[in-house]
Amino acid sequence: MNDALTELAMGGRRPLARLLTRIENGDPSVRPLLPELFTAGHGAHVVGITGPPGSGKSTLVNSLITEWRRRGKRVGILAVDPSSPYTRGAILGDRIRMMEHAADRDVFMRSMASRGELGGIAATTWIAAAALDAAGYDPVLIETVGAGQSEVEVARVAETTVVVEAPEMGDEVQAIKAGLLEVADIIAVNKGDRPGADRAARQLRAMLSTAGGRVERKPPPVMVTTAVTADGVAALADAIEAHRSVAREPLEAKERAANQVRRALAELAGRRAADDPSWDETLRAVADRELDPLTAAECLLG
Amino acid sequence: MNDALTELAMGGRRPLARLLTRIENGDPSVRPLLPELFTAGHGAHVVGITGPPGSGKSTLVNSLITEWRRRGKRVGILAVDPSSPYTRGAILGDRIRMMEHAADRDVFMRSMASRGELGGIAATTWIAAAALDAAGYDPVLIETVGAGQSEVEVARVAETTVVVEAPEMGDEVQAIKAGLLEVADIIAVNKGDRPGADRAARQLRAMLSTAGGRVERKPPPVMVTTAVTADGVAALADAIEAHRSVAREPLEAKERAANQVRRALAELAGRRAADDPSWDETLRAVADRELDPLTAAECLLG
Repeated sequence: MNDALTELAMGGRRPLARLLTRIENGDPSVRPLLPELFTAGHGAHVVGITGPPGSGKSTLVNSLITEWRRRGKRVGILAVDPSSPYTRGAILGDRIRMMEHAADRDVFMRSMASRGELGGIAATTWIAAAALDAAGYDPVLIETVGAGQSEVEVARVAETTVVVEAPEMGDEVQAIKAGLLEVADIIAVNKGDRPGADRAARQLRAMLSTAGGRVERKPPPVMVTTAVTADGVAALADAIEAHRSVAREPLEAKERAANQVRRALAELAGRRAADDPSWDETLRAVADRELDPLTAAECLLG
Repeated sequence: MNDALTELAMGGRRPLARLLTRIENGDPSVRPLLPELFTAGHGAHVVGITGPPGSGKSTLVNSLITEWRRRGKRVGILAVDPSSPYTRGAILGDRIRMMEHAADRDVFMRSMASRGELGGIAATTWIAAAALDAAGYDPVLIETVGAGQSEVEVARVAETTVVVEAPEMGDEVQAIKAGLLEVADIIAVNKGDRPGADRAARQLRAMLSTAGGRVERKPPPVMVTTAVTADGVAALADAIEAHRSVAREPLEAKERAANQVRRALAELAGRRAADDPSWDETLRAVADRELDPLTAAECLLG
């Protein structure tokens, strides 16, 4: 086994931190490690948690970590920052709350910035999750901030995705967040001590039971949590645990694999095309409307 | 020239409607038309307009159409629905306002549903935009609803992207929308008659001038519009027109072409891999963690 992976398996925090830095930077030396890294894991449950700013998601993550620690689990957390330069500040601010678990050797927290490349953030995330798994962390929690493209991509890496909502958000915000509901395996209506939390949960349940999407699946459970007092957090941890076996049913696992492979194919095909000597000339022809993009892609792919 | 394209060039509405249906359905008979369809256009300005529900975007689109008609332009509009089953109703409701221009032969409006496939909506949109261009419409306006993945993808198809905001939206919504600002070439703070519109515009300008993103470009202009009275709409039409030449600078055009070709490559590589006899076996191996997704993609791409 490769030295880096041996060190990882021995549970050292510093080898893990170094490997994650190489993964984040897209260091080419990571590529030859992948086959072993991917198979070295212990099968950690990869849990995604996402939701808009203001939903109290970071506080909920903090409470979940406390609950998992109580259950004797070693918890790995990847906090994935979207690529937007406009939100970075807010996200880094959120991180400060994580300090509660900073001295705990069995909690490993890491922020990762997105490179904004299509497929890039998702690929980086699954490689990093595999590294945390190989280092013995289970569950591996992937936290994202915002409600955009990268959240949906990252959610597809996770086996179980929790979407956090807050009761007091208006209709407009609800509509914006609708895209997130589609990727939810579990919904947590947080700030459950606020007026309207139970009503918001009921509305969500009604909306999900009548919506036409994902007909082959049951609507996701809607839980009410109050992160600051930890009310409902043990039940949320139970629901996440219960979803683990659902996520590992062959059809679900295959769908996730197909998604990962398609992204890898897209990245690989894009990289090979960009290395092709005719790449610049092809782009010029498309830009000048002499050639349509599909025919261009067929020529480049051969 | 193909019959369908000849009919299109003659300006018939029905041939155009039929072709758009075939494009929307992903009819395989469209594929052989693409090289000619792509080059048959007159170089229409493709303008994207997006923004969250509640920003008054549809009313603004209506006012923009009126302004363009006053300037003698034939306007094509593609209203692209995101794939979410949770928002469809709201979007179709918006469409009713378009009826004002329904009797105008020089306005062609078409709703298109997204198939939700990665790359699918963007590909369908550029093919449909090429059809409207070939039929003599200029500008071609692509309108999207929401603030998710498909909006960003569709924005990348457009040469000029207008992001519509409303002044009264809170900080939380602002943060959610931050992803949209990244794709904005022009920002319209709509509902300009409401208190706080000018302040919101100033805040946006300050935010955009200090943000680190897209350093090579000037910050996008922030305009204040009141769609219902048409205040500021002529100025917005001017700003869109002024951006046309910026969008067609060789570097910008090449970047857009690269994006289109990369998406086409991703789709093509994914389709070929799925046709490969080893596809199912490869997915099973990835799902069972015997094989990492990158190595799987390399094997499939050959």
